[in-house]
Amino acid sequence: MLENIFQYIDLHQNEFIQSLKEWVAIESDSVQPLPHFRQEIFKMMDIAADKLRHLGAAVDSIDMGHQELPDGQNLPIPPILLAELGNDPKKPTVCFYGHLDVQPAKKEDGWHTDPFTLVEVDGKLYGRGATDNKGPVLAWINAVGAFQALNQDIPVNIKFIIEGMEEAGSVSLDKLVEREKDRFFSNVDYIVISDNLWISKKKPALTYGTRGNIYFTVEVKCREQDFHSGTFGGILNEPMADLVSLLGSLVDSSGHILIPGIYDNVTPLSEEEKKMYETIDLNLEEYQNSSQVEKFLFDTKEEILMHLWRYPSLSIHGIEGAFDEPGAKTVIPAQVIGKFSIRLVPHMNISVVETQVKKHLEDIFSQRNSSNKLKVTMMLGVHPWIANIHDIQYIAARRAIKTVFGVDPDMIRDGSTIPIAKTFQDIIQKSVMMLPLGAVDDGEHSQNEKINRYNYIEGSKLFAAFFLEVAKMHS
Amino acid sequence: MLENIFQYIDLHQNEFIQSLKEWVAIESDSVQPLPHFRQEIFKMMDIAADKLRHLGAAVDSIDMGHQELPDGQNLPIPPILLAELGNDPKKPTVCFYGHLDVQPAKKEDGWHTDPFTLVEVDGKLYGRGATDNKGPVLAWINAVGAFQALNQDIPVNIKFIIEGMEEAGSVSLDKLVEREKDRFFSNVDYIVISDNLWISKKKPALTYGTRGNIYFTVEVKCREQDFHSGTFGGILNEPMADLVSLLGSLVDSSGHILIPGIYDNVTPLSEEEKKMYETIDLNLEEYQNSSQVEKFLFDTKEEILMHLWRYPSLSIHGIEGAFDEPGAKTVIPAQVIGKFSIRLVPHMNISVVETQVKKHLEDIFSQRNSSNKLKVTMMLGVHPWIANIHDIQYIAARRAIKTVFGVDPDMIRDGSTIPIAKTFQDIIQKSVMMLPLGAVDDGEHSQNEKINRYNYIEGSKLFAAFFLEVAKMHS
Repeated sequence: MLENIFQYIDLHQNEFIQSLKEWVAIESDSVQPLPHFRQEIFKMMDIAADKLRHLGAAVDSIDMGHQELPDGQNLPIPPILLAELGNDPKKPTVCFYGHLDVQPAKKEDGWHTDPFTLVEVDGKLYGRGATDNKGPVLAWINAVGAFQALNQDIPVNIKFIIEGMEEAGSVSLDKLVEREKDRFFSNVDYIVISDNLWISKKKPALTYGTRGNIYFTVEVKCREQDFHSGTFGGILNEPMADLVSLLGSLVDSSGHILIPGIYDNVTPLSEEEKKMYETIDLNLEEYQNSSQVEKFLFDTKEEILMHLWRYPSLSIHGIEGAFDEPGAKTVIPAQVIGKFSIRLVPHMNISVVETQVKKHLEDIFSQRNSSNKLKVTMMLGVHPWIANIHDIQYIAARRAIKTVFGVDPDMIRDGSTIPIAKTFQDIIQKSVMMLPLGAVDDGEHSQNEKINRYNYIEGSKLFAAFFLEVAKMHS
Repeated sequence: MLENIFQYIDLHQNEFIQSLKEWVAIESDSVQPLPHFRQEIFKMMDIAADKLRHLGAAVDSIDMGHQELPDGQNLPIPPILLAELGNDPKKPTVCFYGHLDVQPAKKEDGWHTDPFTLVEVDGKLYGRGATDNKGPVLAWINAVGAFQALNQDIPVNIKFIIEGMEEAGSVSLDKLVEREKDRFFSNVDYIVISDNLWISKKKPALTYGTRGNIYFTVEVKCREQDFHSGTFGGILNEPMADLVSLLGSLVDSSGHILIPGIYDNVTPLSEEEKKMYETIDLNLEEYQNSSQVEKFLFDTKEEILMHLWRYPSLSIHGIEGAFDEPGAKTVIPAQVIGKFSIRLVPHMNISVVETQVKKHLEDIFSQRNSSNKLKVTMMLGVHPWIANIHDIQYIAARRAIKTVFGVDPDMIRDGSTIPIAKTFQDIIQKSVMMLPLGAVDDGEHSQNEKINRYNYIEGSKLFAAFFLEVAKMHS
């Protein structure tokens, strides 16, 4: 049965690429808040809705209203598509999340070809949105379409949730998911997201976790107006001196976070987990070269990956209110705001970390006996996400990958914070899986974004194979 | 003899104020590099040259050519006036430095009256340039004019060096002074600058020192392009962590500089100097209130003034290349430049301090064992200036102040760096004195700049009295 599907996909690959070309041609940029781009996203959502209807899906294009921007501009939010195909209570229901908006792109930014014209060179399909996320959305549609073209029964009920504001922070998505929790999502068994990349150019991956993030501002204030360092230098507790001492107390030169208790809730490393890191396809030399970093804090692949994925990290981002331009201004900034964040891992708790950080900074500050005012604020807190890799859909996906690509996937996490998986998991309380199709060098968000023809076509097969495997295991 | 002079000045004070009004009316702004303002400065210099010629002085208006601005604009530099009146080898020659350009001013910045219309309210003459520096220049001219009006012999030979680019960094002044060192300046015995303020609203002051400044950049670089903290956080020596640790090693929370050896060349405090601080008229409470600082590092007037004037201070100004805007960007800056400077005091040596700072930062950095690159650069170095207060012109000025104001002056320094005194001292190698006329609340560079009628008129008398005293002592 799968062989027919695979053959069909292979035979129709140029049609699939043609569809991707049509979608890439729409400049559905959600990052630049301009009416013109918003219209393009609306157009994109319309075309996608038609495509889903063409599959036979019932499509609901939900009006999301307007958003007011900080500059007072009022812009319409593109609709979110909720679509469903099949409603057989004996089959599992798999809901696919994807987005059709893209990052900005201009030829003059350094693209070799027009970013909104899909161009194939050496098996690589260049174009904005090719891998993030138009290609993967179409691959899922291609998989469903192949079953239908061959009049084969789709072994799962399919749902889609497709948005057009992901690159702008998924405005209003949470609210819709919350609202539809007991309706559209009530019978969903598995949620699949395919919006990230493999860690390798060639070896497929399955993503089972993302780090969270907790972002702090540390304000040290003497007065409103800045001072001149000639007129006041020598008699003040200078806010910058306080602030660099506070920021300097956070992390040591080996990357170890110095906030007392911060590691207490980090999940200990199990033998099973440790082994997973050993088989991952990461060429350390190539990774180091491509990142243009002379030396990392760690020497082995395993240590590097663990410190990116399963240990917290603390980064100092900068200082607001101080002198930040070229030149030699002799100012004593009177009010400065330091910014840092901690990438959270299971099972660190946002409010525990918030308390630890505040206590630590207040302790350091009180040791300085400074007459300035300290204010530590948590600006945002996003939980880490981790899936159970023994869950049915993970096992199904591993089998499907083995079938299509002939290898076991890298079991990976993402060091970044992708709130969507955790959001679905928390609100719908169903298993969420991130099943990427793109290769590590796809350049999402960069110039010359691409998806390999191979990944796009085999990815369509992978989704088809996944339908079968998950149906088999679910029953 | 002086009584006649003083009476003449008192009787003609409204004429003197009329002259100041005419000068304030010229918008001789050197800060905004616009052709229109440059023309105004040229006009100002022409009017001043006429005024000096009217005194009977030989005036040389030196063409200073053009300057090219960073934006490619080419602007003419206003002439510098060199004028001389009297050439009696038996008299001492006193050269007065002043400037006739001003800071920008607009009514809408918060001026109660039009900044370029001199307005008297309650004995205060409001207008841009009234105290900085048009008033003091005119006071000197008024003093000379009084002798002439009364047909009295001026007891000193008078020279003037008047520029129009002081607020823009005295472009080309050094070069002219260097060039004229053995001509115009060859017979100059004393140089008087009257371009700063008293430390009190009422008690006159004599300024005998200014701090120098040495400004450093500390660059920590990993690579050119910034990192995302999700993708790289945890495996890097982050440049910001290195930098805050470097900046945090410079000064402790009591304001003490931690760079080894930095205090070695600071002149020890003598008993004579210590006593001078005790008599200075500084109302600590008022000073604290007006500066809106809750608490200074020191509790007594003496300690505060010493730490502003005779001890070095270190200020951290900011960081270039990090995230400095509002919001929560999760960036790991890859290349950051910290900026700090040290106010230098006698007899700290620029190149010694440069070596100490570089060695200290390199030591701290090497302890971190970071793979980043460190580069410490001295951006500018200006020597401190200190005069010998037992010098003839200081004694003469003290006597003149006692005569006119009935009190001994505050012997003060300036915590800021005013290169002009040190420049004259170094190039011409003659005694330089700063003899301010303005009160502490004159608001130079601020909105509602003013000079008190009292200060302006008594200042004219002070200069006249000074001519006599310095001639008496010199002979």
